[in-house]
Amino acid sequence: MTQTGSLCVVGLGPGTSALLTGQAQAALQGADVIIGYDGYFQWIADLVRHKECIALPLTQEVARAQLAVERALAGQAVSVISSGDDVVVIPGVSAVNACAALLGAPIAHDFAVLSLSDLLTPWAVIEKRLAAAAEADFVMVLLNPKSARRQWQFARACALIGQHRTPETPVGLVRNAYRPDQAVVLTTVSGLADTDVDMLTTVIVGNSQTRCFQSRLITPRGYMC
Amino acid sequence: MTQTGSLCVVGLGPGTSALLTGQAQAALQGADVIIGYDGYFQWIADLVRHKECIALPLTQEVARAQLAVERALAGQAVSVISSGDDVVVIPGVSAVNACAALLGAPIAHDFAVLSLSDLLTPWAVIEKRLAAAAEADFVMVLLNPKSARRQWQFARACALIGQHRTPETPVGLVRNAYRPDQAVVLTTVSGLADTDVDMLTTVIVGNSQTRCFQSRLITPRGYMC
Repeated sequence: MTQTGSLCVVGLGPGTSALLTGQAQAALQGADVIIGYDGYFQWIADLVRHKECIALPLTQEVARAQLAVERALAGQAVSVISSGDDVVVIPGVSAVNACAALLGAPIAHDFAVLSLSDLLTPWAVIEKRLAAAAEADFVMVLLNPKSARRQWQFARACALIGQHRTPETPVGLVRNAYRPDQAVVLTTVSGLADTDVDMLTTVIVGNSQTRCFQSRLITPRGYMC
Repeated sequence: MTQTGSLCVVGLGPGTSALLTGQAQAALQGADVIIGYDGYFQWIADLVRHKECIALPLTQEVARAQLAVERALAGQAVSVISSGDDVVVIPGVSAVNACAALLGAPIAHDFAVLSLSDLLTPWAVIEKRLAAAAEADFVMVLLNPKSARRQWQFARACALIGQHRTPETPVGLVRNAYRPDQAVVLTTVSGLADTDVDMLTTVIVGNSQTRCFQSRLITPRGYMC
């Protein structure tokens, strides 16, 4: 135990150790206790074998944060682990970048990232953002497109996007990037509503400049114009 | 030299080896030749000491790409290095995430990333995207806010943002994240136009939910509402 406690939020990125940064690894190795969503511990089992690990289920975000603060105040070095989607004090490779890399270079120019989950954000706000990003020709990165409880929102988003993009606009879908069951699918705006998506799928919708070349999506910065 | 050539685009992230992933490091170590913008080689000098390195200046993007393809076709293992801003086959910690981490958690919810450089994108397109993102309450990440040749665009962007955000909306500026001369500045929408920015500055403009707490910017996902 350290004399003065500390609290570090560590970005794991997609989870695979090949995409963990040295800084993130050092933080985990220096921790007295590691706290996080239970689904994330599988990715760092080797690194935290001899550490105290506190795994809590989804929806226990507030409990996790409180526990982390309590332990740090008690003098421990605390690491809170987080997937790459969160912006964290020790940054990781975000899911957005990991998925984009697997698709080629779709977000090499302006892009907007938005979650379709209306559990904590009103659907009206999400719809306004969808329309704004689609109309202003941002490449769009859609997170949490569908879940067991949220089924109709994705179709609604596809319809909105269809109003502002041509049917042939390329779209890439990545599920579980850099994990053993990784899946990459290419489609178009016209085919998007019929693709299988869930909470682990990231959808990248091209803009008017995005091209599909040898199974890769590329959004040029202008050199190709 | 390998028998069959290969071409790998490697994301260096901010450059510091602490934020280089293991996968990126392995790609550089396995390369016969490393090609890239000359400004990036300082970050990986230790890793590429005994390699053939081809450093080309900015604006030589097409020449770099052609050379990389030629060398790969000739049978070499080629690594093209790229800063974290590019989306790459081997993903890095993007500048967006590195800067956000230094500011706290400003992009924990929907955000839009856009470059203010109108060298390759018409200003009318940029202005349309600025207005759309500002009006739809996206957290906004502004890249390339100003350069020696582009001076007036940043003031124009600040004015546009001011039409859709309150003057007190928190803004964070990060220059050279995780590099020796890193600088982090907090301001508000009303003070933004008067801050010093250049090509190495990333500007993160909060949305209506973003709070400043103990010098950190936080955009809640809803748990705090």
